[in-house]
Amino acid sequence: MQGSAGDDCLTGVRVIDLTQFEAGPSCTEAMAWLGAEVVKVENPTAGDPGRSINPPGKDVDAHYFLQYNANKKSVTVNLKSPRGLALVKDLVRKADVFIENFAPGAVERLGLGADVVRAINPAIIYAQVKGFGTGSPFEKNLAFDMIAQACGGTMSITGEPDGPPLKPGPTIGDTGTGMLTAISILAALYRRTRTGQGEHIQIAMQDAMLQYTRGAFAATTTSGKPARRAGSGSVLSRNPPMGLFPTKGGGSNDYVYVYTSRANPEHWRRLLAVIGREELVGDARYDSPAARLEHEDEVNAMVTAWTSKHDKHEAMRIIGGAGIPAGAVLDTSELLNDPSFEQRGIMQTVQHPVIGTYKMTSWPARFSGRPPTLRPAPLLGQNNEDVLESWLGMSHDEIGTLKTDGVI
Amino acid sequence: MQGSAGDDCLTGVRVIDLTQFEAGPSCTEAMAWLGAEVVKVENPTAGDPGRSINPPGKDVDAHYFLQYNANKKSVTVNLKSPRGLALVKDLVRKADVFIENFAPGAVERLGLGADVVRAINPAIIYAQVKGFGTGSPFEKNLAFDMIAQACGGTMSITGEPDGPPLKPGPTIGDTGTGMLTAISILAALYRRTRTGQGEHIQIAMQDAMLQYTRGAFAATTTSGKPARRAGSGSVLSRNPPMGLFPTKGGGSNDYVYVYTSRANPEHWRRLLAVIGREELVGDARYDSPAARLEHEDEVNAMVTAWTSKHDKHEAMRIIGGAGIPAGAVLDTSELLNDPSFEQRGIMQTVQHPVIGTYKMTSWPARFSGRPPTLRPAPLLGQNNEDVLESWLGMSHDEIGTLKTDGVI
Repeated sequence: MQGSAGDDCLTGVRVIDLTQFEAGPSCTEAMAWLGAEVVKVENPTAGDPGRSINPPGKDVDAHYFLQYNANKKSVTVNLKSPRGLALVKDLVRKADVFIENFAPGAVERLGLGADVVRAINPAIIYAQVKGFGTGSPFEKNLAFDMIAQACGGTMSITGEPDGPPLKPGPTIGDTGTGMLTAISILAALYRRTRTGQGEHIQIAMQDAMLQYTRGAFAATTTSGKPARRAGSGSVLSRNPPMGLFPTKGGGSNDYVYVYTSRANPEHWRRLLAVIGREELVGDARYDSPAARLEHEDEVNAMVTAWTSKHDKHEAMRIIGGAGIPAGAVLDTSELLNDPSFEQRGIMQTVQHPVIGTYKMTSWPARFSGRPPTLRPAPLLGQNNEDVLESWLGMSHDEIGTLKTDGVI
Repeated sequence: MQGSAGDDCLTGVRVIDLTQFEAGPSCTEAMAWLGAEVVKVENPTAGDPGRSINPPGKDVDAHYFLQYNANKKSVTVNLKSPRGLALVKDLVRKADVFIENFAPGAVERLGLGADVVRAINPAIIYAQVKGFGTGSPFEKNLAFDMIAQACGGTMSITGEPDGPPLKPGPTIGDTGTGMLTAISILAALYRRTRTGQGEHIQIAMQDAMLQYTRGAFAATTTSGKPARRAGSGSVLSRNPPMGLFPTKGGGSNDYVYVYTSRANPEHWRRLLAVIGREELVGDARYDSPAARLEHEDEVNAMVTAWTSKHDKHEAMRIIGGAGIPAGAVLDTSELLNDPSFEQRGIMQTVQHPVIGTYKMTSWPARFSGRPPTLRPAPLLGQNNEDVLESWLGMSHDEIGTLKTDGVI
């Protein structure tokens, strides 16, 4: 069977990437993993500010930056110099995609707004990621992941039922938005193969959050009330046993999630066998979801009596192996050290010229059995020569002059 | 400027959709919004079990189902009958994409495994969504959103620092995986325009979670320790003031998120002006992130003294308007009733033949200023005639016979 690991899907697609931090970079990284030539255009002084988020040393790129910029190239350009701006416009003529996530109004002030760029290259896909949508009362406001999560509903449905709202740990505001941007760009690129047409795509982080909280919106439409926080349960329905149960060890992540589906009564019966309570199979006090809800504390206590005698891995193995949905709560160290991810290519070990060896996830889909191969994030300006020569046919000397003159 | 709202991007792409619940349906819905002809193939008895999750009445599709199946078609096929199976194989010959998210091994037992389908149509993109990856010790296990979130790290980084792990409310395990699947399929479709080549894409919900928690993995790589829960702060760094502050009203979502960036010292100085403490601008006790961390309780108390006198909307308006990232915690009812979403087309009002009128979000990206237009999710088997006629050229009578014989 032919197999490419997916990293030739977007071969030939050239992306001018004026994004920073995470929402934009996560989008272009997905494209880079799938084969696009993504060129980060960065200021020559410090580059993407993501390079300096909690770095492991002085003048070293942060692991945060490495996570979101693998497989890309970096070109430095002083966008405030007329020659720098002209250089980017020359790159625009050769590009298929232009993307930015600066603060509202900034890219237009730089002279690279949608009207300018699309006039130079009408077939380009021009994409913008902002905190709030054009036309929103907050369109000029700054936003980061947590602001999007506050205003987009995700915090209101996370937390204990009687506690305050809480930020989900995953950066849905950033990467969650980045993934929707990638889908939108790829769809527009696909259309372009048919029609030749460019596009102006705009996405707001607040709006993007709605995409990830639609179960809660369904609940609101049905009930007419705001979705409430449900702890580790579901905003849609309570159906015990369903939730986190403590396991042996007592550590901060020594829990196993056990889920018995309302749609499949076998889950409960199988669980009774696992926890040694077969005598309760068919017992009317527990046999239906409604009955278990009435005896919720008892039901949870029976499950806990069993889980607290097993460690989380064993609990997952035994309960999951018996055909009941179950999952140990794994922390980031356990996941990084779990050999299964490396064996399957989901995590790969990368060799970075300055940082050295580290392990991270690649694009987590497998194409003919393998995810794309990781290459480390570029050093600042690492690909100046390569890109200016291959995109614009510039000579070594011309590039040298740009460097001497502080343009790149 | 030409503008299509994006809903012609995937015109001509035919998708055979054997998915249910959310992880698969969220993927194909994104494709349907962007113009693909997505045909849900459902069992004639009850269809996608998502139709019956908390429905508003008897024999009515759930709002949950409407959320994840807009703009699709539905064809009923009894896959366990030889004629039903042959019918799907006929559809396979005409399709560009085949996608399923059954329990492990089920699609192969039905006789529609990757080898079979790809032999019939070598150019097809065949995509599978499972809980755990092929080759994982848990590859045969069942999974739902919460199991993926337990095993994929998202629960371990959500919650209060001294509390138990917690499930994020957004369904990242489901929709989060669906979005990565959509990107993978679109990339393979794009390649196919160049090479004609089909593909076998596999994605596991556990693996997909890693994509949304990479800031935490960066922290672990830097520190060598598991990322800890950070309440509503960040796993990457503590930088007060940063978090949820209570506002006037005292309701369960009366909070505003305030974020002062380490990278931009102006945020703190602007905030001092907003809260009427200009006398502290430049005060060494508070002027640097390190100093504020040392006086964290005092800093938070000053901000709270101001926020508790304003309601959350006013607090967001004033703080955000002064150039400091700020966001009110909005609940699902507030968001559904916020006129900005409808004005911008992000939410649209849909007319469903049975449910009547309801409002939901469309694809939250705008193409030339508008998101795609919503069409309601199909009734079970609503498009039998249309699809069998237009894809396979079947006559009204032939379709009638299939129906009489219980094949569709």
